[in-house]
Amino acid sequence: MLSRVFFASSNKNKFEEARLISSKLGISLEFFKCKLQEIQSNSLEEIAYHKATQAFSLCSKPVIIEDDSLFISSLNGFPGPYSSFVFDTIGNKGILKLLSKQRSAIFRSIIAYCEKKGNVMLFDAKVYGKISEKIRGSKWGFDPIFIPKGQTLTYSLLKNKNLVSHRYLALKKFTNWYLNKKKSNG
Amino acid sequence: MLSRVFFASSNKNKFEEARLISSKLGISLEFFKCKLQEIQSNSLEEIAYHKATQAFSLCSKPVIIEDDSLFISSLNGFPGPYSSFVFDTIGNKGILKLLSKQRSAIFRSIIAYCEKKGNVMLFDAKVYGKISEKIRGSKWGFDPIFIPKGQTLTYSLLKNKNLVSHRYLALKKFTNWYLNKKKSNG
Repeated sequence: MLSRVFFASSNKNKFEEARLISSKLGISLEFFKCKLQEIQSNSLEEIAYHKATQAFSLCSKPVIIEDDSLFISSLNGFPGPYSSFVFDTIGNKGILKLLSKQRSAIFRSIIAYCEKKGNVMLFDAKVYGKISEKIRGSKWGFDPIFIPKGQTLTYSLLKNKNLVSHRYLALKKFTNWYLNKKKSNG
Repeated sequence: MLSRVFFASSNKNKFEEARLISSKLGISLEFFKCKLQEIQSNSLEEIAYHKATQAFSLCSKPVIIEDDSLFISSLNGFPGPYSSFVFDTIGNKGILKLLSKQRSAIFRSIIAYCEKKGNVMLFDAKVYGKISEKIRGSKWGFDPIFIPKGQTLTYSLLKNKNLVSHRYLALKKFTNWYLNKKKSNG
């Protein structure tokens, strides 16, 4: 039987992707739909810590939250921790307008797990890559404009995105730790 | 003698401008330099409420905070509550790149006053205008790209900015209320 952990988010797409990845890694994620308050901070760790603490106080069961952010080098790390807001306002079209030759970017994912008040574990991963010249593909978020290093296609068009993405790598770190912990606890 | 209120901020420029405006309106502002945590929210009121509460818990004296945000209509309200972050990353140059013909914008200011735990008063003001075609003037923030309605110059170049700006209007609302309160309390 798969271990069960709640996944707190307001974003069903994100949950579905995380569920798919995690089930292959041996953990069954269950959706805990909620709107969590985010603090404004340049530290993804701090934002994630706060969100996991909140999620646990709402759900009172072992729970993770996942946050991802795109950092574009030539834009001093924009959109960074405010990726959702930027996506909802200027969108991928806006980001493409801001860029010229220098297109390096990093996609980061951070997972925060909480099963006890005041006790949060963080797992993060990053994927280096670049911003495409045009929007390619139709998936949600920045997937249609991010090309991971060593690839020629955007996340949206990559068939194996869920085996190479920042979200996959962070979930793998988390599930390894979680399953080991369960094993050593008997 | 002028009434004395603390002004909590990490931004000396903002304080100096607010001090200048307020002294003419009958209130003496004193700088309380601190870094306040901002929540991520699309509601300026909510952000300001949290900041004033925090500022009071740090300073334990009657204190105001002031937040201003630029909302560009054709960009769905971008940069909005994340104005500081956007200024620090893509800057005014980035904003100009995002715009074409439709350039309407609103500059909002909100002041939150706290003199007792759990008791916050909010005062807000907005100025309609547009984003200039080019950066004009050298003042801080979005001043070099915002032209208030009925004017031809940006805030940076307007000699009487401190008599027409969103910050002036919000400070006027606050000082009117504050001085009346003091008067009626004897």
